Amino acid sequence: MLTNDQLAKWDRDHFMHPTTHLAQHARGEAAGRIIKTGEGCWITDRDGNRLLDAFAGLYCVNIGYGRQEVAEAIADQARELAYYHAYVGHGTEASITLSHMVMDRAPDHMSKVYFGLGGSDANETNIKLVWYYNNILGRPQKKKIISRWRAYHGSGLMSGSLTGLALFHQKFDLPFDTVRHTTSPYYYRRADVTQTEEQFSAQCAADLEELIAKEGADTIAAFIAEPMLGTGGIVPPPKGYWEAITPILEKHDILLIADEVVTGFGRLGSMFGSPHYGLKPDIMTIAKGLTSAYAPMSGSIVSNKVWAVLEQGTDENGPFGHGWTYSAHPIGAAAGIANLKLVDSLNLVQNAGEVGPYLTRTMADALGEHAHVGEVRGEGMLTAVELVKNRDTREGFAPADKIVPQIVGAMARRGVIARAMPQGDILGYAPPLCLSRGEADTVVTATAEAIAEVLG
Amino acid sequence: MLTNDQLAKWDRDHFMHPTTHLAQHARGEAAGRIIKTGEGCWITDRDGNRLLDAFAGLYCVNIGYGRQEVAEAIADQARELAYYHAYVGHGTEASITLSHMVMDRAPDHMSKVYFGLGGSDANETNIKLVWYYNNILGRPQKKKIISRWRAYHGSGLMSGSLTGLALFHQKFDLPFDTVRHTTSPYYYRRADVTQTEEQFSAQCAADLEELIAKEGADTIAAFIAEPMLGTGGIVPPPKGYWEAITPILEKHDILLIADEVVTGFGRLGSMFGSPHYGLKPDIMTIAKGLTSAYAPMSGSIVSNKVWAVLEQGTDENGPFGHGWTYSAHPIGAAAGIANLKLVDSLNLVQNAGEVGPYLTRTMADALGEHAHVGEVRGEGMLTAVELVKNRDTREGFAPADKIVPQIVGAMARRGVIARAMPQGDILGYAPPLCLSRGEADTVVTATAEAIAEVLG
Ligand SMILES: Cc1ncc(COP(=O)(O)O)c(C=O)c1O
Ligand SMILES: Cc1ncc(COP(=O)(O)O)c(C=O)c1O
Repeated sequence: MLTNDQLAKWDRDHFMHPTTHLAQHARGEAAGRIIKTGEGCWITDRDGNRLLDAFAGLYCVNIGYGRQEVAEAIADQARELAYYHAYVGHGTEASITLSHMVMDRAPDHMSKVYFGLGGSDANETNIKLVWYYNNILGRPQKKKIISRWRAYHGSGLMSGSLTGLALFHQKFDLPFDTVRHTTSPYYYRRADVTQTEEQFSAQCAADLEELIAKEGADTIAAFIAEPMLGTGGIVPPPKGYWEAITPILEKHDILLIADEVVTGFGRLGSMFGSPHYGLKPDIMTIAKGLTSAYAPMSGSIVSNKVWAVLEQGTDENGPFGHGWTYSAHPIGAAAGIANLKLVDSLNLVQNAGEVGPYLTRTMADALGEHAHVGEVRGEGMLTAVELVKNRDTREGFAPADKIVPQIVGAMARRGVIARAMPQGDILGYAPPLCLSRGEADTVVTATAEAIAEVLG
Repeated sequence: MLTNDQLAKWDRDHFMHPTTHLAQHARGEAAGRIIKTGEGCWITDRDGNRLLDAFAGLYCVNIGYGRQEVAEAIADQARELAYYHAYVGHGTEASITLSHMVMDRAPDHMSKVYFGLGGSDANETNIKLVWYYNNILGRPQKKKIISRWRAYHGSGLMSGSLTGLALFHQKFDLPFDTVRHTTSPYYYRRADVTQTEEQFSAQCAADLEELIAKEGADTIAAFIAEPMLGTGGIVPPPKGYWEAITPILEKHDILLIADEVVTGFGRLGSMFGSPHYGLKPDIMTIAKGLTSAYAPMSGSIVSNKVWAVLEQGTDENGPFGHGWTYSAHPIGAAAGIANLKLVDSLNLVQNAGEVGPYLTRTMADALGEHAHVGEVRGEGMLTAVELVKNRDTREGFAPADKIVPQIVGAMARRGVIARAMPQGDILGYAPPLCLSRGEADTVVTATAEAIAEVLG
């Protein structure tokens, strides 16, 4: 085993980390952490610190760490056949079986799954599918995509354009022109505080109608949305939101892409977020919970309606020119099969639907009256605490004060990992779906103590 | 174990394959193949057929199939820690060690590696890096990318735009406007047959100069190129090509992105293709050979010059807003470490430099005089046989005749896998780097017999 010092030096000298302050990391000024192992909701770093990971990595380790059933499935696959490609109709028992298991769980009107590597590339595939779809249907001008401010759909060029957060746009010349953003369904941050949730939802729908009218419905191909906002703040949709939005899409023949990267496979206490909110998407994006991150794998699930056009397209034009070398990778497929079996056998969807709301409720009970807590909100195994300088005006803290990063730091010293969401003063929680009530209590206690330490 | 019939039905009903005729596959009209296991250069399908895979999957299984050292490294990592993220300076022993091993092998002027999943997303990262770079340097208008016709850089929206092949553009509204393509360094297909290789290289350079002049050098950020053309036809650069091109890039302050997804880690008989051809890239793309496909992993290697600007950027603007959930995935990192160790201990770079040219030479000896063989070419462990209807005019076959797919089918019946390259009448070979001379002979014999069967 290498010493931490040797590793730390290689890390600074050679490793460009994602979403990191590169200069501070290279100079050794940033904290960082080298993780060694994990079990259930807990991880252990190389200095021997044990932490309760209340964000499940990046809300992806849904079954929890250290599941030997998945490790053994990966090991068996690696020994038998680590790789073969899936181009031109090739497959492996693992990838075919996983396609069957995914479609078994997907809503009935969905047809097939294309496998990718991560959520970003799956969303990129989705845009290619949508453009191809409208080209085959002879509507070459129907190509713009509507997304929402505060959405997160990835950090590539197109997926980052779909994302509606400043950090992923600034200095990268994003978003692209073909993407338009509409109002974020973020009731707490509504402009008109007198609005009820229903009124605000009607406002969101009216804003969408207006955008469509301005652009021209015949230029708009698809609307992409997380069933519930994730990285943009962990915000459940306001009452009546989806009921108001979906008829507009149908009226204008705009495809709905439901980005289920976070909500898929149990996080909301239901198998998918779309049926949870009564959505009938044309395309669904899956990643994270598909393998619980034990191996990289994502997917684009297409509906019968979309598939029929893809068939027409290949009958007219020959092979569909889209593929990643690692599409449907056997190691990811083996991990996905073992993971989905555990999601079932451990009853994790049900646990998410019970312990998640318990966590949100307990958090609200502990912090709801705090002078700097603006809102505690959540749905299923997703919870957020939004901090404010002033509860009445909802005014935030100065970014330079780094209030939420300080709180996250104070929590880590108490052995609990939460996430400072990238925009706003928001503490985020997305624990493994196997969280127990006792562990939920630990998370709440650490949060309350850390907030008290930083804000009094 | 599932019966082939059950699997085949699931496959048709649920699985959307990459780069496949979707309708034919779903109707059960396409061949397809379900792969079960592999060893060395050989794979076995579920019907018990054993085939010599002379394309190493998709030129990625460089160490060959069934290497238990890599399988055990993956298994150990899965048991200890299948996943933790690398955001905000986090790491694992595996990912840090692999960053060190990569930089140990990369040219001296390179600084750090960012890990992605596949070649396409790594090239997307590269474009983000290049745009960020010029924004930090205060040159917001210097953003266009020059690529080459017949390049392959992936099949996403941007990476597919960089690609210069029709299959990946048609019906997808690609390439994007910010990408311009210049002359392909494909000597056999030169317009003016009287040109020597050197004259043709000078022509390519003049075409590039002209394109830069037309667009304006201050609008052009980067030139991206495979050191040797891969998917576009397996074409070594003509004599003097790189010597003519690189001074032009330097003169106009245009960054060079060397896409080493195929050429990296030994395929040309040298660790990387850039030093092989005397290139000094600013960014290098790696994937395939990094893990020999045992797990998905790619990388963007940035030079000292680029890194300095990234540091400046984060000092001025805070964290770099770019990351995939699965960046630096521990399973990929463990596979990469074990793979690179095997590349060394099995002397695969040297074997590629010896047996590869033997394969090309033997192929040329066997087929060079055939009336329908226009050219046999190659470099390192990459070989191509270009077929023509007429040797004198270089006229090709009618696409509807599917001559090369027929030959590939005839070879498969003889137990050898070659690839019908996607544009032109080209048979491609990129065997595992462990190919023996005996196996090379088998490949040549199967090719000669199959060509005789189809073309006489
Ligand atoms: C809703 C959603 N979509 C897409 C992505 C992008 O996934 P990845 O990071 O695997 O590219 C994420 C990642 O957090 C996400 O939350
Ligand atoms: C040179 C080159 N770059 C990029 C890619 C794309 O890699 P991936 O298929 O892993 O996305 C490929 C794939 O063949 C390639 O050959």
